[in-house]
Amino acid sequence: MHDAERITLAHGNGGRRTRELIDEIFATRLGGPDLDTEVDAARLRLPGDDWAVTVDGFTVEPIEFPGGDIGALAVHGTVNDLSVSGAEPVHLSVSAFLEEGLEFEVLVRLVDSFARAAKEAGVTVVAGDTKVVPRGHGGGAYFTTTGLGRIVRGDLSAKSVRPGDVILVSGPVGDHGIAVMLARESFDLRGDVRSDCASVLPLCKTVWDVPGLRFLRDPTRGGIATVAHELSRAARATVRLREAEIPVRDPVRGVCEMLGYDPYYLACEGRVVAVVAPDEADVVLERWRNADGGADARLIGRVDEGPARVVLETSIGGSRILDELEDDPLPRIC
Amino acid sequence: MHDAERITLAHGNGGRRTRELIDEIFATRLGGPDLDTEVDAARLRLPGDDWAVTVDGFTVEPIEFPGGDIGALAVHGTVNDLSVSGAEPVHLSVSAFLEEGLEFEVLVRLVDSFARAAKEAGVTVVAGDTKVVPRGHGGGAYFTTTGLGRIVRGDLSAKSVRPGDVILVSGPVGDHGIAVMLARESFDLRGDVRSDCASVLPLCKTVWDVPGLRFLRDPTRGGIATVAHELSRAARATVRLREAEIPVRDPVRGVCEMLGYDPYYLACEGRVVAVVAPDEADVVLERWRNADGGADARLIGRVDEGPARVVLETSIGGSRILDELEDDPLPRIC
Repeated sequence: MHDAERITLAHGNGGRRTRELIDEIFATRLGGPDLDTEVDAARLRLPGDDWAVTVDGFTVEPIEFPGGDIGALAVHGTVNDLSVSGAEPVHLSVSAFLEEGLEFEVLVRLVDSFARAAKEAGVTVVAGDTKVVPRGHGGGAYFTTTGLGRIVRGDLSAKSVRPGDVILVSGPVGDHGIAVMLARESFDLRGDVRSDCASVLPLCKTVWDVPGLRFLRDPTRGGIATVAHELSRAARATVRLREAEIPVRDPVRGVCEMLGYDPYYLACEGRVVAVVAPDEADVVLERWRNADGGADARLIGRVDEGPARVVLETSIGGSRILDELEDDPLPRIC
Repeated sequence: MHDAERITLAHGNGGRRTRELIDEIFATRLGGPDLDTEVDAARLRLPGDDWAVTVDGFTVEPIEFPGGDIGALAVHGTVNDLSVSGAEPVHLSVSAFLEEGLEFEVLVRLVDSFARAAKEAGVTVVAGDTKVVPRGHGGGAYFTTTGLGRIVRGDLSAKSVRPGDVILVSGPVGDHGIAVMLARESFDLRGDVRSDCASVLPLCKTVWDVPGLRFLRDPTRGGIATVAHELSRAARATVRLREAEIPVRDPVRGVCEMLGYDPYYLACEGRVVAVVAPDEADVVLERWRNADGGADARLIGRVDEGPARVVLETSIGGSRILDELEDDPLPRIC
């Protein structure tokens, strides 16, 4: 393999080059006691607890961006889906579609980043697969991760949300969406905005035991507006968000104003939205502010009796409906 | 969604169209008691058995071919990896990368096919994700499936293979590879060869309790030659295959001769290779011949003392080395 600096179709044929790719690039970085590259399936002893399972595909363009890359994203995305489901992430499987021509140097950075994120979240990689797709397909690399987690807090659900509950967010919104968009273009703004790509496991863990916690969600594709729609549908209630309270960093707001984006629809990859009984909002906020990544946590809205819709109370005292996302403001963001 | 006949980037944005795509196309066909499209992770109670986990990505071109399609393949591939690992398939997760412009009519056929294969194998789909990639980037559709199975026979391993063991195959080799290749071209031969794409669970189940069974493997990418190499490496022994005994259908042999392919390197998607103690070969062959898909099962070779290599004993009494696969004879086959 060392004589080639790029992925070729032969790396996907199941023969010597596939084996070398897996052994030299993937297994050395992701391996552990549960990863055996010579078997068709890994063996796991899963204690008879309740388990959570989730799957996510990742297609971000570009595959490396300020604050992260598709390797870290593929771990965090699935770890975060388990975390907001009240589950401690335990195992991951990973499937990679690599584009013919991808530089090994880049692939190694992605896999290193994947490995760091997995280690940080305490998950072991138990199964993997790689395929190679022809040049021009595949956007460099796509990843799919499936995660298994042990359920610690099992009753979190949008269906348990009720009027009177309040909505919190763990930090500023839209950083990931804008960082990725800027990385595609050659704006001078580049570098001012970094993706928030991170594990939200520490934020979730610290509030799993709050009795009045109803629901957690990481606002990825479609942003906090899409989470708000999901809540309004599930609770059959009106969700009111307060523009003045929603944290948006200045450079993100600046880019949004310049280009006509609405930050509430932009993807975050390291934030959590919580819905909580009003008398426990302060507990959650305090714990978040003391946890990694939660310094800017805010109460941003509430659930009200009323028709299922999402209303933004604007900073100047008016209000507007936040419609469900129709056209994609920014494709291939995660 | 009904006003659009093709997948658009908006179907991947996490908003209304994504929800409709998931609810109307995927959930209606793949849904069951364990699939809830409104949660980030599905909840499973996994009894404290030993479990097997496996993941596979699928990129076949074309996505529909005589005898199968990428939907069926994505189920069978993972079901088969569990089956040859001695595990009863129980749960599947699925991730789809859909290409902008894919016709709904085609997608519905793929998902129907996926659902039929899952039902046939007795697996439930517990988690799913879809992403949309720009026109030209996704070869129609890529799928990744992760499978969880309950281990019934836990000691199958290439490492337990020893000199004296014999090698069996459940049916003719190379049908899948040739069927897919012909489907790409406009040969008149098209239609003469159908993919063997199928579940090998019935074949595996029927022999899991044979004490002398050492190893099972589905010869996909790289074909039986690649399985033979894996065996020779693990057993540090010479694997001898007998050309006259390896079943190859006439039209497959004809196409191989015409185009210079070696059928032993071509992918199968519904065959099993077994390694078994010599005195139990007849038991396995008899059970296979009485099971679905095993009518043409044959003893095709043996494991001998000697250097780790694969030797083909030819029909005319000579022998040649089967090298490890280097260049891809046929990319994007599964």
